[in-house]
Amino acid sequence: MTQPQSVGVVEPQRMRFEAPLALKSGGQLDEYELVFETYGELNAERSNAVLVCHALSGSHHLAGHYADAPENKGWWDNLIGPGKPLDTRKFFVIGVNNLGGCYGSTGPASINPATGAAYGADFPFVTVEDWVDSQARLADRLGIKRFAAIVGGSLGGMQALSWTLRYPDRVGSAAVIAAAPKLSTENIAFNEVARQAILTDPEFHGGNFYAHGVVPERGLKLARMIGHITYLSDDAMATKFGRNLRHGKQVYSFDVEFEIESYLRYQGTKFAGYFDANTYLLTTKALDYFDPAFEYGGNLNTALANAQADFLVVSFSTDWRFPPERSREIVNALLHNRRNVSYAEVECAAGHDSFLLDDPQYHGVLSAWFDRI
Amino acid sequence: MTQPQSVGVVEPQRMRFEAPLALKSGGQLDEYELVFETYGELNAERSNAVLVCHALSGSHHLAGHYADAPENKGWWDNLIGPGKPLDTRKFFVIGVNNLGGCYGSTGPASINPATGAAYGADFPFVTVEDWVDSQARLADRLGIKRFAAIVGGSLGGMQALSWTLRYPDRVGSAAVIAAAPKLSTENIAFNEVARQAILTDPEFHGGNFYAHGVVPERGLKLARMIGHITYLSDDAMATKFGRNLRHGKQVYSFDVEFEIESYLRYQGTKFAGYFDANTYLLTTKALDYFDPAFEYGGNLNTALANAQADFLVVSFSTDWRFPPERSREIVNALLHNRRNVSYAEVECAAGHDSFLLDDPQYHGVLSAWFDRI
Repeated sequence: MTQPQSVGVVEPQRMRFEAPLALKSGGQLDEYELVFETYGELNAERSNAVLVCHALSGSHHLAGHYADAPENKGWWDNLIGPGKPLDTRKFFVIGVNNLGGCYGSTGPASINPATGAAYGADFPFVTVEDWVDSQARLADRLGIKRFAAIVGGSLGGMQALSWTLRYPDRVGSAAVIAAAPKLSTENIAFNEVARQAILTDPEFHGGNFYAHGVVPERGLKLARMIGHITYLSDDAMATKFGRNLRHGKQVYSFDVEFEIESYLRYQGTKFAGYFDANTYLLTTKALDYFDPAFEYGGNLNTALANAQADFLVVSFSTDWRFPPERSREIVNALLHNRRNVSYAEVECAAGHDSFLLDDPQYHGVLSAWFDRI
Repeated sequence: MTQPQSVGVVEPQRMRFEAPLALKSGGQLDEYELVFETYGELNAERSNAVLVCHALSGSHHLAGHYADAPENKGWWDNLIGPGKPLDTRKFFVIGVNNLGGCYGSTGPASINPATGAAYGADFPFVTVEDWVDSQARLADRLGIKRFAAIVGGSLGGMQALSWTLRYPDRVGSAAVIAAAPKLSTENIAFNEVARQAILTDPEFHGGNFYAHGVVPERGLKLARMIGHITYLSDDAMATKFGRNLRHGKQVYSFDVEFEIESYLRYQGTKFAGYFDANTYLLTTKALDYFDPAFEYGGNLNTALANAQADFLVVSFSTDWRFPPERSREIVNALLHNRRNVSYAEVECAAGHDSFLLDDPQYHGVLSAWFDRI
C-alpha cells in the first residue's frame, strides 16, 4: 500500500456558457462562466468522473495547491488524491464554484453585461436545482454523460441528492453527507439572523456596496460567527475552549476575555475579508429553499421515487445543524423506494464540521464505498 | 378551592441607597436607586417574604398590572397571586429591577451624579453577586432578616443560588429553575455574537448613544433574534412555524418569506424599541461571569458547601440553553453536601422559555413546594 499523496500543484479552469440558463425563480442568466478544477484523468470511456459539490463557503478548489500559494490547500485535500479515499489514480474528480459564488464563477461581484457594472442586488436568486443544471451543462461540455459518483457534504450533499432527481440516469452513485432533505425551522432562523446582520449593515448599500468601495464587514463577521457556533458541537467547543480566560481572570471589559470570543472574532473578521456578502445571502436562501418534497405535498417518498443511483448517506453523532435523524429521513425515503442505500452514523465529536475532517471511521466508510464503485 | 386570581393593580416603589456599594469588579456605585414591587402582606414576624429574581430581559414587574396599562401584566403573573402557586395570601412577594437595568433601577441610562450626564459606557460592570448584595440591602431596609424563599428562573435562578452562598442564613428555601452553575462555551459564544452585534452598530457610539439621540437598534434587534432562537426548542419552533410560507410559495426576496422570519424580526424590533443596549451588554457579561466554583478551582461541591437552604431545582426536557444535565450538576453538588434538595425534570416542549409558562406539571411542582414552606 502506497502512502496517500497530494494531487500537488493544480490550476483552476474557466468555461463560458452563452446559452441562457433558466432559473427556478423564473429569471434567467443570459450568459455566465464557471470556474472549476479537475484532478486525475478522464478515462477513454469517460466513465470515471466524480463531481464534488461544495457547501456554503466552499469552492471549486477541492485538493492540492496553487503554484504561488503552497499553503492554500483545497478544502477536501484530506479526502482527494492518489491513495486517498477519493483516489485520483482511479477517478477523474471535478470541483465547480457554484453560480452566484465569489471564487471566480459568475456571481454578484461580476460585471453585469447589461449594465457594465457589478450585478450586486440585481444578481438573480439561484437554487440547488439551478446549480445542478449548470453543473450538468459543464459535464456536457466535458463529454461526461454519466458521473460515476456525485458527492457532497452539507449544502453539497443537497446538490448530490438533487442530481439524482433531476438527472437520474446521469448519476451512478451519490454520497449525501451531513445533509438534510430540507432545513428545519431553526436552521432557517439562524440563516435569517445572519442575513439580517448583512442586510442591516449600513455598508451593505442595498447589495450595491461595490460601487461605494466598501464591504458590509460587520454584518458578514456576525453572520460567520453565528455560522461557526452551528458548525461546532457544544462538546467540541467545550473541549477546545472551555471557559478559558485570556488573562487568567475576569478583567471586566468588552474586549476578549474568554478564548471562545477570540476564536469567533478571528474567524468572523477573516471571513469578512474574503467572502462576498451577496453570495452569502444568496447561498443561505438556496439552503432555505431546498425542499424536493415541496412539490409533492411534503411527501419525501414520492419526491425521491425517480432516483436511480446507489446511495451512501453519512451523518455525524454530534451534528446539531443537520443531526442524524435528518439523514435518516433521506435513508427511509430511499428504502421506501427500494433503492440501494448504505447509511453510516459516524461517532465524531466535531459537530457539523466533522464532514471536513479525516476521522478514521468516516474516511474508512468513504474508502470502502469508493472502492466498490 | 377558590379560583386563582390576579393581584390586580400594582404600583412600583423606589428606594434610594446612599452608602457606596462595592462591586465584584473592584469598582463601586457611590449611590443608587432600586425599583421594586411587592404583593401580599409582610406578616408580623417578617417571616413570609419571598424574593423573585429576574432574568436577562425581566423586571421587578412580576404580577398584576398598572392602573393605566391593564394589558401590561407582570412576567410571572401566571405564578403569583391569590390562589396561584406562589400564593400572595400566604407570602409577601418582592420583585426588584436589577442594578444596571433599564426599568427604573439605576443603570447605564441613569444620570451619573459625577458628570450630570447618562452613565453610558461609564456604568460599572455588575455581577450576580452584586445584585444579590444590593437585594440584601433592600431586604435590610424592609426589615426582612430572612427570606422564606428566593426564587428565580434562568439568570434569576443563578441569583437564587448565589443568595444561598453569600447569605446562607438569610434564605430558608431556594428555587433554582432552568439555570446552570455556569455558562457553557456555547452559551458564552451566543452572548458574544449578541454583544458584537451591539458593539459594532455605528449607532452604539461606544455606549454613549444617549447623547446622540439614537439607539443601536440594528444591533439590539439582532441580539434579541439570536436570543429567541436559544430560548425556544427546535421542536417548538417547528410546531409553531414549521416551514410555513407567508405567501404560500417561494417569492425569491429578502423580505419575509418564512413565518419564522416574521416572528424573529417582529420580536427583535419590538425589543429594540424598549430595551437598553448597555443593559443588554452588562447582563450578558454577568451571565458569562457567573461561576461560583471558579474561586474553588472549579470544584462545585466545595463552592456549594456553605449553602443551608432547602432547594428545589427544576429543569425542562427541551431546554437546550441550560439543559437538564446542567441542573443535575447543581443537584449533585448539593447532595454531595447533604443538603435537602428536590429535583424536577419537567417534560415541556417550549425549550428554555418553559420556565415562564403555566405548564401543569411545572406549576404543580411549584405549588407543592411552596405549600411545604
